[in-house]
Amino acid sequence: MAVLCKPAIAVPEYVITNDETLELARRLHSDHPQLDLVLDLIAHTGVRKRHLIQPIERVLQHPGFDERSVIYEAETKARVPAVVTQALGHAELEPEQIDLMIYVSCTGFMMPPPTAWLMKTMGFRPQTRQLPIAQLGCAAGGAAVNRAHDFCTAYPDANVLIVACEFCSLCYQPTDVGVGSLLSNGLFGDGIAAAVVRGNGGTGIRLEGNGSYVIPNTESWISYAVRSTGFHFQLDKRVPGTMEPLAPALSALAEEHEWNAGKLDFYIIHAGGPRILDDLSRFLDVPPEAFRFSRATLTEYGNIASAVVLDATARMFDEASAFDGDRGLMAGFGPGITAEIGLGTWTSGPDAVE
Amino acid sequence: MAVLCKPAIAVPEYVITNDETLELARRLHSDHPQLDLVLDLIAHTGVRKRHLIQPIERVLQHPGFDERSVIYEAETKARVPAVVTQALGHAELEPEQIDLMIYVSCTGFMMPPPTAWLMKTMGFRPQTRQLPIAQLGCAAGGAAVNRAHDFCTAYPDANVLIVACEFCSLCYQPTDVGVGSLLSNGLFGDGIAAAVVRGNGGTGIRLEGNGSYVIPNTESWISYAVRSTGFHFQLDKRVPGTMEPLAPALSALAEEHEWNAGKLDFYIIHAGGPRILDDLSRFLDVPPEAFRFSRATLTEYGNIASAVVLDATARMFDEASAFDGDRGLMAGFGPGITAEIGLGTWTSGPDAVE
Repeated sequence: MAVLCKPAIAVPEYVITNDETLELARRLHSDHPQLDLVLDLIAHTGVRKRHLIQPIERVLQHPGFDERSVIYEAETKARVPAVVTQALGHAELEPEQIDLMIYVSCTGFMMPPPTAWLMKTMGFRPQTRQLPIAQLGCAAGGAAVNRAHDFCTAYPDANVLIVACEFCSLCYQPTDVGVGSLLSNGLFGDGIAAAVVRGNGGTGIRLEGNGSYVIPNTESWISYAVRSTGFHFQLDKRVPGTMEPLAPALSALAEEHEWNAGKLDFYIIHAGGPRILDDLSRFLDVPPEAFRFSRATLTEYGNIASAVVLDATARMFDEASAFDGDRGLMAGFGPGITAEIGLGTWTSGPDAVE
Repeated sequence: MAVLCKPAIAVPEYVITNDETLELARRLHSDHPQLDLVLDLIAHTGVRKRHLIQPIERVLQHPGFDERSVIYEAETKARVPAVVTQALGHAELEPEQIDLMIYVSCTGFMMPPPTAWLMKTMGFRPQTRQLPIAQLGCAAGGAAVNRAHDFCTAYPDANVLIVACEFCSLCYQPTDVGVGSLLSNGLFGDGIAAAVVRGNGGTGIRLEGNGSYVIPNTESWISYAVRSTGFHFQLDKRVPGTMEPLAPALSALAEEHEWNAGKLDFYIIHAGGPRILDDLSRFLDVPPEAFRFSRATLTEYGNIASAVVLDATARMFDEASAFDGDRGLMAGFGPGITAEIGLGTWTSGPDAVE
């Protein structure tokens, strides 16, 4: 059975607090007709601080898409290997034992994907398969875990490395001043996560089932405009309300496995924003503290896109409160509007007694 | 067992012959210091004509990355559904019977991927999983077949739709005048392919095994520079020589299955350029006519990136010369330098006698 081992997480060294974000918004957009609304939204994101790969002064200066692509590649190469090494360590595996690398990142674009460079740099076998996913946004963390689960189901002895590398600050667009854009500027942070799904052995979340759901007619609600200035994130104001149609999809997948989505032992939910978490706990009828791992990610790092679910997972490992056989649900949400949903049980290892 | 059914192919209505390409190169680059070399290379691509989504006059006018992104999305929506319908027809399946959509395209970028739009437009179930791959370039056709194979191995009753949509002409960059760029301008064409991998039933190539190989230290040989003007394709002059290190990887995968890569009944090879095909037939010790399907794709359409292997597969179906149990090899090549390799046997259907 496929087991998601403890993720490794890194956030960059430059920090911006929510108070500093509010101050910046006031200064940069003093004549914005909806400034009060923007400030109110940012004040209530639940974010305390975010981490950035560059000082905020440099983030705010858009150097052009050419330069941003250069920064994206350089920062990827500088920051990803250490996180991968730590994730392999958590899984007690060496690079040559990895059969598939799933690399997700929606905040920059490289072809070939960074996997080709990582393989030769870190000693992965040349036969390691590469699966880069750039277009699933925040849902890609969940998608990566689900595709790793599929791969280990097909090849029970295989091991899969997942990397989620998101430099959201490289998508800051100073000319986008709609309310959705200004809110996003106060919500997203940078972060890198990696984790291994082991086909055999391992301590962590044994993956039991997965599924996906796309809300029809919502493909324009979260999207990129791809322009000469780079990726422009476009957020529709209806997005915070999407938990109402998605909660039944989560429940339905749980029911297929004869589980009750409202009565599980742990929850790893994409912390897209505070209302996502509030609404989902209401629609699934679970207490708000069930989402404490996701809420902690949002508070400490902001929305780090596809890396959120892995960071929240790492926090669950750190709490060390799960018992063998405990049931849980993981859900990533992103453009589509897509939910990538997984079900798993906690296992302390091959000798676990349930 | 997973069976790759007959692919559907569409090429757009605007045609440019190789003579017209040579004439254009002469006119546009009359003072190029290596014009004779460029003309000689284009004359020997093996391409007779290529198909384009716009008249060549419009292709040559770069309207900016913003406008190209708009064209990419509009042309995708206008051209993909009919090809998908035909591929579903070949597989005798309805949209609601598809469990995973693998969408590969490296010549434009959309988030969400076009799958979200296709799902609601064409009647796929909202539970259909989406796997968009943008960063594997020409190797993505082979990768899509291989990941579909993996998925059907994990879930034997599942069906996977593959779409490869490549508008290479939208990556034409008038300011790139290196020899590699000018050769590429004469080599790549536009095309759309779709195919279904059925978990149960189906006539076609029964997928028996797959693997991947990345040549170490070649990640810069085929790459995109991602700039304000869009994707700039960068081709190293060492790329045509990569069959020497890749042929052993193909042979090794065949040997794992106790097959001899030089003694198979059919070959579906990415027709990156004429030397790729010439060299590979030499290194695998197979007669040049073994690669006739790929050569026909190159001649009729040029290099249509990830769609090449699906188009060559369709030509094999059309030839109708395979017998049940015939063994074959599929290989896509692309940035990394990556080979995505698959092994399969021909099956005329569930009642085939081998």
